[in-house]
Amino acid sequence: MNFPFRKILIYGLGLMGASLSLALKKKRSGAEVTGIVSSEESKKKGIALGSADHLLTSAEFQNSPNWNSYDLIVFGVPVDTTVELIRTLPKNFSGYMTDMGSTKRDIISAVDTELTVTSNKEGKLYVDDTLAGRGEASLPGHRYVSSHPMCGSEESGLEFANADLYENRLCILTRPKGALPEAYSKLESFWKFLGMETVEIPALEHDRILSYVSHAPHLISSIMTNWVWENECVQKFTEGSPLPLTGGGFRDMTRIAGSNPKMWAAIFSSNRDEIYQSLQEFRKHLDGIISDLNPEKPLDPDRWKSFMEKSRINRDGILKHNNGPKKR
Amino acid sequence: MNFPFRKILIYGLGLMGASLSLALKKKRSGAEVTGIVSSEESKKKGIALGSADHLLTSAEFQNSPNWNSYDLIVFGVPVDTTVELIRTLPKNFSGYMTDMGSTKRDIISAVDTELTVTSNKEGKLYVDDTLAGRGEASLPGHRYVSSHPMCGSEESGLEFANADLYENRLCILTRPKGALPEAYSKLESFWKFLGMETVEIPALEHDRILSYVSHAPHLISSIMTNWVWENECVQKFTEGSPLPLTGGGFRDMTRIAGSNPKMWAAIFSSNRDEIYQSLQEFRKHLDGIISDLNPEKPLDPDRWKSFMEKSRINRDGILKHNNGPKKR
Repeated sequence: MNFPFRKILIYGLGLMGASLSLALKKKRSGAEVTGIVSSEESKKKGIALGSADHLLTSAEFQNSPNWNSYDLIVFGVPVDTTVELIRTLPKNFSGYMTDMGSTKRDIISAVDTELTVTSNKEGKLYVDDTLAGRGEASLPGHRYVSSHPMCGSEESGLEFANADLYENRLCILTRPKGALPEAYSKLESFWKFLGMETVEIPALEHDRILSYVSHAPHLISSIMTNWVWENECVQKFTEGSPLPLTGGGFRDMTRIAGSNPKMWAAIFSSNRDEIYQSLQEFRKHLDGIISDLNPEKPLDPDRWKSFMEKSRINRDGILKHNNGPKKR
Repeated sequence: MNFPFRKILIYGLGLMGASLSLALKKKRSGAEVTGIVSSEESKKKGIALGSADHLLTSAEFQNSPNWNSYDLIVFGVPVDTTVELIRTLPKNFSGYMTDMGSTKRDIISAVDTELTVTSNKEGKLYVDDTLAGRGEASLPGHRYVSSHPMCGSEESGLEFANADLYENRLCILTRPKGALPEAYSKLESFWKFLGMETVEIPALEHDRILSYVSHAPHLISSIMTNWVWENECVQKFTEGSPLPLTGGGFRDMTRIAGSNPKMWAAIFSSNRDEIYQSLQEFRKHLDGIISDLNPEKPLDPDRWKSFMEKSRINRDGILKHNNGPKKR
């Protein structure tokens, strides 16, 4: 595949950003990658680990931001920081832009506002309305398409980077109103080059879906650790036991508990409405179960048998196990 | 280690029972293992897979039950069936007995009732009160100690058996009132021989702890699949996507959703009170989170940051990561 970018800036070289940089190298993209890190300490680590071709702290970069030296910018920072950075992008930036944000509405809204999409008399969209007003030949539309590679980890930091992180995973693409079609196809090629499959989902639907399949589950997983550890009996016998009292199920269910607090605080804030709605739906399901467990009700083992059977079928639906051999 | 049993009956050769049989062989226990299966079909599979030295269907065994041919009986059937079988054990059975049940109160209560622990004039406990009453030299106490090897799986059936299932895992032992001390130590040696660590927990505390670390989480995991799949937006875009829309977190959290419906129906029924209580505690935590997400409240990202930090620390407590290198 012909790789469409030569000089790439990954702004935010955490687990996702550093893995992206390593994947670009492993796949022989030929691109020169500059990574921006938050601290001198991370810069030292990044240099030692070869996380990117060039490393700069955000202070160094912001001292004289040379956005125009890159033909692709990938934001690998939390959603709130991504929004702030979009506001500082030069209006004449001619490269392609994307992010790896876990929520889309705030980012798409910032792109719609900041990349000043307006129309000239012929109804064409222009990135730069001064150019459009003067009737000059600026290209219609901008080159920002938002991405959400579905391959995070409960770890954070470039030391946990993994060149295979993106392989065979899904990347959701979200198209802002004024994005050029070629921007969409270039970004799609970019992720496919890394071994991903892609699907387009609009911002609102993305944020709703993600509240169900990721954001609310991260809260549920974290709630579970607090709820279990606050039980005196669990604490007492855990302390006296040679091994944890949990089986593999609990361990797996709480793997993502307390993932990267800074990143997740930003996600919970920026997608608060959807998470609030989805957890209220979750609570309805929970209340139904609690009500049926009420010791004053007659016992109905068949109810639990069919409940378990149904949830397995639904899991197969969610994980697309419907076709082909059942992979549990 | 000197293995203490020669002829073992594993009553219920499902995933746990068949794994136990394979582990006994792999560890060269020298014991001759007979496995009881529920159907002719499982018997054929078990013979083909070499799941035990001898295989019988429960109908064949019950036709002329020769309990006394074994020096150890391990029940590998659901809790309700275990209780029924305890009721049919011959009063003069002289071997050791255990089970692998996930709840303890019903089993311990059946043992206390059925193995007729009474005391003679000297206050000694006897298995058989007719012998005790006649002053004959029956041994004081019985040889039943309940076990809970913490190493299930979302799979079920002997075809998923794994000889290493018990290795380095925890086995919880629960001592009925009238159990002989030697029965406890023999059963402890049995599980240690298989590579397990052991801890003693009384029935009530066992069932409380397990409702938190296993039973309620199985319900939560199953609720999650129903809640997510009932969302129209998730269904619609899942169907149009080349890959599932979930990340690894959701996949892990729902691995145990809809596990073995028959076994779990029995667990939910037999530990209903504790699960009911624990889920009500869970709901209190959930309600706190939902309340703080309310879009009408002021946004406090620090609240979420400290919430995530706390839940990671609590997870480390539960999984005993406090000591030694942090294994996330």
